[in-house]
Amino acid sequence: MAGQVRPVMSNSCSERERYRSMVLCSLSAFALSTPLGHVRKYLMKALKAGLKSHNMMMGPAGKHYGDLKVMSGLFLVTCLQDGSEDLTFHYWALFDGHAGSGAAVVASRLLHHHVALHLQEVMEILCTPNLPPPTCLEEEPVNHLLTTTSNRALTRAASLRGAAGAPGSPNTPPTRFFTEKKVSQESLVIGAIENAFKDMDVQIEKDKATYDISGGCTALMVLYLQGNLYVGNAGDSRAIIIRAGEVIPVSAEFTPESERQRLQFLAYMQPHLLGNEFTHLEFPRRVQRKEVGKKMLYRDFTMSGWAYKTIDEDDLKFPLIYGEGKKARVLATIGVTRGLGDHNLKVHDSNIYIKPFLSCCPEVKVYPLSQWEHKADDVLVMGTDGLWDVLSNQEVSEAVTSFLANCDADDQHRYTMAAQDLIMRARGTLKDRGWRISNDRLGSGDDISVFIIPLMYANKQT
Amino acid sequence: MAGQVRPVMSNSCSERERYRSMVLCSLSAFALSTPLGHVRKYLMKALKAGLKSHNMMMGPAGKHYGDLKVMSGLFLVTCLQDGSEDLTFHYWALFDGHAGSGAAVVASRLLHHHVALHLQEVMEILCTPNLPPPTCLEEEPVNHLLTTTSNRALTRAASLRGAAGAPGSPNTPPTRFFTEKKVSQESLVIGAIENAFKDMDVQIEKDKATYDISGGCTALMVLYLQGNLYVGNAGDSRAIIIRAGEVIPVSAEFTPESERQRLQFLAYMQPHLLGNEFTHLEFPRRVQRKEVGKKMLYRDFTMSGWAYKTIDEDDLKFPLIYGEGKKARVLATIGVTRGLGDHNLKVHDSNIYIKPFLSCCPEVKVYPLSQWEHKADDVLVMGTDGLWDVLSNQEVSEAVTSFLANCDADDQHRYTMAAQDLIMRARGTLKDRGWRISNDRLGSGDDISVFIIPLMYANKQT
Repeated sequence: MAGQVRPVMSNSCSERERYRSMVLCSLSAFALSTPLGHVRKYLMKALKAGLKSHNMMMGPAGKHYGDLKVMSGLFLVTCLQDGSEDLTFHYWALFDGHAGSGAAVVASRLLHHHVALHLQEVMEILCTPNLPPPTCLEEEPVNHLLTTTSNRALTRAASLRGAAGAPGSPNTPPTRFFTEKKVSQESLVIGAIENAFKDMDVQIEKDKATYDISGGCTALMVLYLQGNLYVGNAGDSRAIIIRAGEVIPVSAEFTPESERQRLQFLAYMQPHLLGNEFTHLEFPRRVQRKEVGKKMLYRDFTMSGWAYKTIDEDDLKFPLIYGEGKKARVLATIGVTRGLGDHNLKVHDSNIYIKPFLSCCPEVKVYPLSQWEHKADDVLVMGTDGLWDVLSNQEVSEAVTSFLANCDADDQHRYTMAAQDLIMRARGTLKDRGWRISNDRLGSGDDISVFIIPLMYANKQT
Repeated sequence: MAGQVRPVMSNSCSERERYRSMVLCSLSAFALSTPLGHVRKYLMKALKAGLKSHNMMMGPAGKHYGDLKVMSGLFLVTCLQDGSEDLTFHYWALFDGHAGSGAAVVASRLLHHHVALHLQEVMEILCTPNLPPPTCLEEEPVNHLLTTTSNRALTRAASLRGAAGAPGSPNTPPTRFFTEKKVSQESLVIGAIENAFKDMDVQIEKDKATYDISGGCTALMVLYLQGNLYVGNAGDSRAIIIRAGEVIPVSAEFTPESERQRLQFLAYMQPHLLGNEFTHLEFPRRVQRKEVGKKMLYRDFTMSGWAYKTIDEDDLKFPLIYGEGKKARVLATIGVTRGLGDHNLKVHDSNIYIKPFLSCCPEVKVYPLSQWEHKADDVLVMGTDGLWDVLSNQEVSEAVTSFLANCDADDQHRYTMAAQDLIMRARGTLKDRGWRISNDRLGSGDDISVFIIPLMYANKQT
């Protein structure tokens, strides 16, 4: 896989280079599922793309840890089925690597492929939005070319014929025997994204046997399909929409603090995962041996508040969640609780695996893009934690809005420059007391990646 | 326990009767922890209560299932410690019983007692709000009179002396060896409420050996302490604040649908809890044998969206979560996922226990009452699901606001009448096509209990 690093890295360079890398990605992404003719067709679409993306990235100010941010620029991915409609989606993604770059690179090349595979399963259903998805589809042969559990879509007619309980289905049992839950078209796209993340994580685990795929990565991806923006997030990157200067958060971060209760509950259910070295209880600080028998503040997975407990020997173990804010760690090792990879990650000098506590499942939020008329300065901002650690949503919104207002409306590079401006604001300037940003606050020492995606191009697409 | 039902039931009658029942409750509540002198003192306080509560309740319109709503009216509970300050809190609670009245009755008599016990532990800390809670308290002997793990508060001086790492503590380790999380006073109250619910549930389980405590109940409790309203909720009752006609939700319901992913995750972790008769997967309807091998919509604990899976034999089992809205059930048995009791509840005609899936842990939300100047028509509304099933927050807000506006401002019974009006709106009137409410919608067939608590009396208390 190492040889594939360069073209993907070029995602973060010029638009031309990004498209070239996209071609490479698309070939690797579609070689499995669609003949080359389709790829060519999808390429032409890509070059005529209505939506454009503009991004910047910058390495760490301090020493480099061999980690990597990878950005997947604008992809136009078309799922094709002979003799039926296309389904084209726009895709952007941000992968923040840690403990090596392998997982981030692989995910940047293949996640959109897994999304396409899962969307392909429901493509014909999505292409007839006036009909609700059938609860049951006709049985079908397994396609051994593909890795996912279920493989290709059916003709709409066949799916309806086979849909027990669906309107007009011949084998509909009397409705009094069961109620049937209505499922929306949007929820099929959400499910496709959720399962794509899972398949991506499984593939990384499998491919580690063949390739050197190091470390893990967070994943933040945005998909534009049929008038909706779908934002899938597994990690501590963040996406916000700025509309008429107003901030609309479209993702939430997953950290040891935000997921404390999920992690503590898992450790409580499966204590062997703690290897007899950690406790699932949280304390405000390390317990000291001389404090055994005294009362100390604690909380378990059932509590959001705090109470006092009498300290016993078990409480001397290291806490599952320890540290505050950016210093918070799971099993004293990792500061983010969702993402891809990390299958081999262990607690230092032990046989305790971190992976069981990490989730590869994204939270997917939907923004109804086509329900709003967006202006030239309305944008989607995607950024890694390096940006958001030092700038608030409001500060980012004000920076972007004021920057774009001062640009020539016809300048094709204004969004790219706005992204660059954001990164400079977050990095700050080197003074005698280190990197400083506004109000003399400390600048970000982490590496920083930013997408700024104008939303106005979607207006005419709906 | 059956003999104790009547006085508690009278909570829902006149104010005088409610206070009388409160005395009985208070005696049973404090017999364990404080001498009668304290009870007498607390009683006098109660009768001079600044805050008043007004509530109404009504039985089911249809046939009665032997369930019971129990309302704990205004209690003033004072935790006393010889030679130190009092800590007095106001308390209201609503318990919605099912499968018998025992748990609801016991909880209405004792939950505030458990809250008092836990607040007593941190009383002196709460009485010095200018100091942050110490991380560690001095060791102390166990008081065998009480059932909770830790039993009585320390003098402030002792707690500070013993607080390793606390400001000015003699045995403070160098701070570079650990970071210390700051814990707020409010979070101690939240922790006290959370542990009080757990202790209440444990006591119900224990006392079942001695008394006939039937069924289970939801619990919604409101505690007013030091300028804050703490709303603890375990179940599907709801509390909202109406301020200047605006609705402020202060609780969220726990149902099979709202807690689907928690329940599916538990079943996935501990499949034996499903007794080989249920599947943790969710389907839009029951799977039929003839559909094995076909594809059907499903979702697991990782998904909020839906996808298709190939149906196998295992999917023919009954779903852990089944049904929609008010018909949704856990293990085909219960429609609410948090509350007290239910320790013996099993799936009909099986040995599968429901309790492992039920949580007795409340979600506690804090409303900073003293930060607002409340008018005469600003109220807290607590209601059981019977009310909220048929009336929206907005409808309740408009009904209460318009009703109070049409009352004489000096009428002491206006809140009681407003509660009565709400219940009548939710029940509706009997027409030839059943009980009907506004817009000819179906009225609530469930029993309905409502508290309306004016907030203006808190103004002068802060």
